[in-house]
Amino acid sequence: MEQFIYSLQDEIVSSLESLDPSAPPFLRDAWQRPKGGSGKSCVFSSQSPTTILEKAGVNISIVYGTLPPAAIKQMRADHTSIPLQEGPEGLPYYAAGISLVIHPRNPHAPTVHANYRYFEITESSTTTSSESTPKIITWWFGGGSDLTPSYLYEEDAIHFHSTIKAACDAHGTLLYPAFKKWCDEYFYITHRGESRGIGGFFLDDLHDGEHKRIPSSSVSPPSPPGTPPDRPRTADEIFAFIQDAGRAFLPSYLPILSKRHAMPYTDHHRRWQLLRRGRYVEFNLVIDRGTKFGLNSPGARIESILMSLPETARWEYMSDLGQEEGTEEANLLKVLKEPRDWV
Amino acid sequence: MEQFIYSLQDEIVSSLESLDPSAPPFLRDAWQRPKGGSGKSCVFSSQSPTTILEKAGVNISIVYGTLPPAAIKQMRADHTSIPLQEGPEGLPYYAAGISLVIHPRNPHAPTVHANYRYFEITESSTTTSSESTPKIITWWFGGGSDLTPSYLYEEDAIHFHSTIKAACDAHGTLLYPAFKKWCDEYFYITHRGESRGIGGFFLDDLHDGEHKRIPSSSVSPPSPPGTPPDRPRTADEIFAFIQDAGRAFLPSYLPILSKRHAMPYTDHHRRWQLLRRGRYVEFNLVIDRGTKFGLNSPGARIESILMSLPETARWEYMSDLGQEEGTEEANLLKVLKEPRDWV
Repeated sequence: MEQFIYSLQDEIVSSLESLDPSAPPFLRDAWQRPKGGSGKSCVFSSQSPTTILEKAGVNISIVYGTLPPAAIKQMRADHTSIPLQEGPEGLPYYAAGISLVIHPRNPHAPTVHANYRYFEITESSTTTSSESTPKIITWWFGGGSDLTPSYLYEEDAIHFHSTIKAACDAHGTLLYPAFKKWCDEYFYITHRGESRGIGGFFLDDLHDGEHKRIPSSSVSPPSPPGTPPDRPRTADEIFAFIQDAGRAFLPSYLPILSKRHAMPYTDHHRRWQLLRRGRYVEFNLVIDRGTKFGLNSPGARIESILMSLPETARWEYMSDLGQEEGTEEANLLKVLKEPRDWV
Repeated sequence: MEQFIYSLQDEIVSSLESLDPSAPPFLRDAWQRPKGGSGKSCVFSSQSPTTILEKAGVNISIVYGTLPPAAIKQMRADHTSIPLQEGPEGLPYYAAGISLVIHPRNPHAPTVHANYRYFEITESSTTTSSESTPKIITWWFGGGSDLTPSYLYEEDAIHFHSTIKAACDAHGTLLYPAFKKWCDEYFYITHRGESRGIGGFFLDDLHDGEHKRIPSSSVSPPSPPGTPPDRPRTADEIFAFIQDAGRAFLPSYLPILSKRHAMPYTDHHRRWQLLRRGRYVEFNLVIDRGTKFGLNSPGARIESILMSLPETARWEYMSDLGQEEGTEEANLLKVLKEPRDWV
């Protein structure tokens, strides 16, 4: 997983840099976590109004340590494979993931977010001799990717979802429908009654047992030859799926960014984009479980957690933008209030 | 209370308008709440870069209805005078308050927030005949005011705190020390290890019993003639204090705004102001209990709740601003990390 995410980070960052050779390079910032772990933040920001990107981060984080019993209890709500009995000293964990957010400057170019992660809980060291590798109690993968346009281009939404669907379908026909729906549910700004964007896919707790979001298949494997798989089942199959999902990121997004980044735009378009970025901030600070968990973790790296926020965001009281039926702004809002099936 | 807050709203809004006669007037927006209540939002926003204010709201909200048992349980943590027994149908409540946030355009002019409110819980209507006035079970006042500069002018901080202290001291020598400290504790951005601003005063649950933040006085009233009061005790005395605290708002803030709004500033100052506004957004969306309560209340008026957010805010990854010892930005941060006594 570490190899995979480091190579994916390189690939994504260099592709973004190649797209805009005159822009300054990403800042690469490798870090060590004194309590266990390391990572590398690749961050772009520029005061120049000519760069394609306005703010972007492609971050790797590998952390390990001990989950306190309270944290284990909280995680069990989403991860039923965590055992009920744990000692008062908690359980050792390991987590590795890549997380990215890209905010382009042009209001016609959508913001994108993606994340691919692995989590593992092992037996407490008091029950394992220090010589042997501790036994894995449970593990899972999670991740996903979602698109947040300020202006809706249906062909972009279809391209983004089709690319994700193809990557999913190769590993199981049950995946895309389940994870597309989950994405619509997760990236929802409750107090606004709006989705954050036009979705994508979202998954968590994917392991080698039953999954609450994936229907139990009527056909048990091995399936008859020629039948497409319905879902990945083994650890290897699941890891292969996560890798293909991660590798689908650039093909899902880069063509859209290439097509939109140089489109002409007005102050009006920019104002609407900044209002939409205000909504992005609202989602990340008020709703997003990962951000809330991070901000509540003592000693967390706040700059990495809040890297997802846009460079600038805007709030207007009772804004008129988006209120007039038939405008491009109102068209976006309609889709955010009623998520569509794009493929 | 309703008379008082409506008259205070008028006074504050017209003073702000008089300060900037060429700016557009505040938008006045009276509203009715179908489920019980009414209010008036007075909101300023302007796309013109020449107005003194950038965004401001001075809002009155009067709401009543039934508090569900879960909400009562949650409120009891802060308001011990709420009785333990309530029916499964909840308890009737009434709340009236004025709330304001003023974000001036000039980075040298500080943002200010103030709020003065009254809350009342009455006996359930099933235990009262519909003819008689329901018996009040408990009531309290709350409120406060706090200043958020981007650049620290010590004389402004001293003026703001001195004005508040004088208004408090007239009603009890125990008030300012208790409520200044409470303000520093409340307006604290935990994940940043920084205060939101340079404080002011904050109070809640002020009623005619003991108060957890006000030390019990050794002298029982009536005090000997000539002794200044130590705290307001009766409902009338408390209401008189709240009114004087509210009337101290303009004298505490307007002289500062008048002195700072036309100071020359550069893009550098503006950039730092927008970064500080990012922190303001973080406090309001992540920490503030009132905002969280509002966003979680079904049917709440989101535009009123989020009126407190600045027009624009900014986030930079690992910003260099404020990092260099001895700069004006670092001087502000020092005070935000270690709250000072200003009077």
